[in-house]
Amino acid sequence: MSQPLKDPQRIYTAALVIIGNEILSGRTQDANTNYIAKGLVERGIRLSEVRVVPDIEDRIIEAVNALRNAVDYVFTTGGIGPTHDDITAQSIANAFGIPLILHEEAYRVLLDHYGSEEAVTPARAKMAMTPEGAQLISNPVSGAPGFVIGNVYIMAGVPRIMQAMFDAALETLEGGAIILSRTVECPFPESAIAEQLTALQGEYPDIDMGSYPVYQNGEHSTSLVLRGTDEPRLSEAERVLTEIVKGL
Amino acid sequence: MSQPLKDPQRIYTAALVIIGNEILSGRTQDANTNYIAKGLVERGIRLSEVRVVPDIEDRIIEAVNALRNAVDYVFTTGGIGPTHDDITAQSIANAFGIPLILHEEAYRVLLDHYGSEEAVTPARAKMAMTPEGAQLISNPVSGAPGFVIGNVYIMAGVPRIMQAMFDAALETLEGGAIILSRTVECPFPESAIAEQLTALQGEYPDIDMGSYPVYQNGEHSTSLVLRGTDEPRLSEAERVLTEIVKGL
Repeated sequence: MSQPLKDPQRIYTAALVIIGNEILSGRTQDANTNYIAKGLVERGIRLSEVRVVPDIEDRIIEAVNALRNAVDYVFTTGGIGPTHDDITAQSIANAFGIPLILHEEAYRVLLDHYGSEEAVTPARAKMAMTPEGAQLISNPVSGAPGFVIGNVYIMAGVPRIMQAMFDAALETLEGGAIILSRTVECPFPESAIAEQLTALQGEYPDIDMGSYPVYQNGEHSTSLVLRGTDEPRLSEAERVLTEIVKGL
Repeated sequence: MSQPLKDPQRIYTAALVIIGNEILSGRTQDANTNYIAKGLVERGIRLSEVRVVPDIEDRIIEAVNALRNAVDYVFTTGGIGPTHDDITAQSIANAFGIPLILHEEAYRVLLDHYGSEEAVTPARAKMAMTPEGAQLISNPVSGAPGFVIGNVYIMAGVPRIMQAMFDAALETLEGGAIILSRTVECPFPESAIAEQLTALQGEYPDIDMGSYPVYQNGEHSTSLVLRGTDEPRLSEAERVLTEIVKGL
């Protein structure tokens, strides 16, 4: 994605596909979205969509193909282990219409990790299968690597392993201006500030203003979140909004 | 969705659209998916997909229209408050191509909640706007109701309020056979059980077998999850799998 002259105004976007029957069945609470979202913000990349789909090839292909044409980077989590329900690599190969092959470097990684050829059982060798032309993403936790093909980054689902892979991948990505954020806490319900917030948003079209109701201990309050890439403008909007809240 | 003769084999499906800049920016960790997933399982409804989209009308419309034609029930969370960034009701109206109107019953609910006509400010009155023909979903926590239009259930994003709305909506939904699940813990990595699990899956095509790697305190183990609607078959598969794990 590197360009000779980088456009400072360019907005970089990403999407996440969580391959996860265990999330959809309620067995597991997803923790990967939040980690990825925060990492992308720090790199100047906007997470534009997340989809959780079941471990069904057609559904994975549909989500990946829809998103990889819509954003700069797509990440997937889950389904790259050695068992029969790990179908991500095959699904990604079919999404791109390229063959799934034994990736020699990935096989060597497994050989190193498990110590001998006979320890790399057929089930484990499956973890060295990637679409042809894929680059590996290293896995310092459990050996079996993730991989990149086109603009799609295929990672493990286990949070600890996913995080190591994501951190390694993130370093290689080009991003744009960092989106800064400021939060102003308002001790009243949203409706107390709604009209003034709308007016302020009109005055600062370059600042994205969000209002998030909080309900705690029987009390309604509101978190007002300002986001933008221009620090002085953001600070100015924050000061004005803080005064408005004080005057309520 | 009620039918004169209920088909016991019918599989009921649902999807969730989370309207959430705050999830995509990493500011908030989603908690609604897990609550909804668990509730649907207990009702015999399968959560088939989750999408997190930004607070942008076109993106909401695209997600809702894609999913409402693919599943029995669509739920949305977020964006139904009084502020300028609350655009869900308008987006849903446009997704269905029907006008957004002041819902008289919703307005009476707000009047009751806030106590007088003048307390129902224009910002608050916005929370009584629904697509024409919508049915309300009551909100015992903070007054402003959710609503149902077609097969789409529009709910608040604040977990405590969403949960009350979801519980009320869930009672009205028709579901199919309850999906039961059993977990067998395997003290070894996935690759130790992969081949035998694949063979077992072949013997029990009616049971969905999932394998989830666990990495804790530097140790790799595996949760094996069996799912199905036939209790005796599920128990039988569980017994066989438990024996396999003991023999490893």
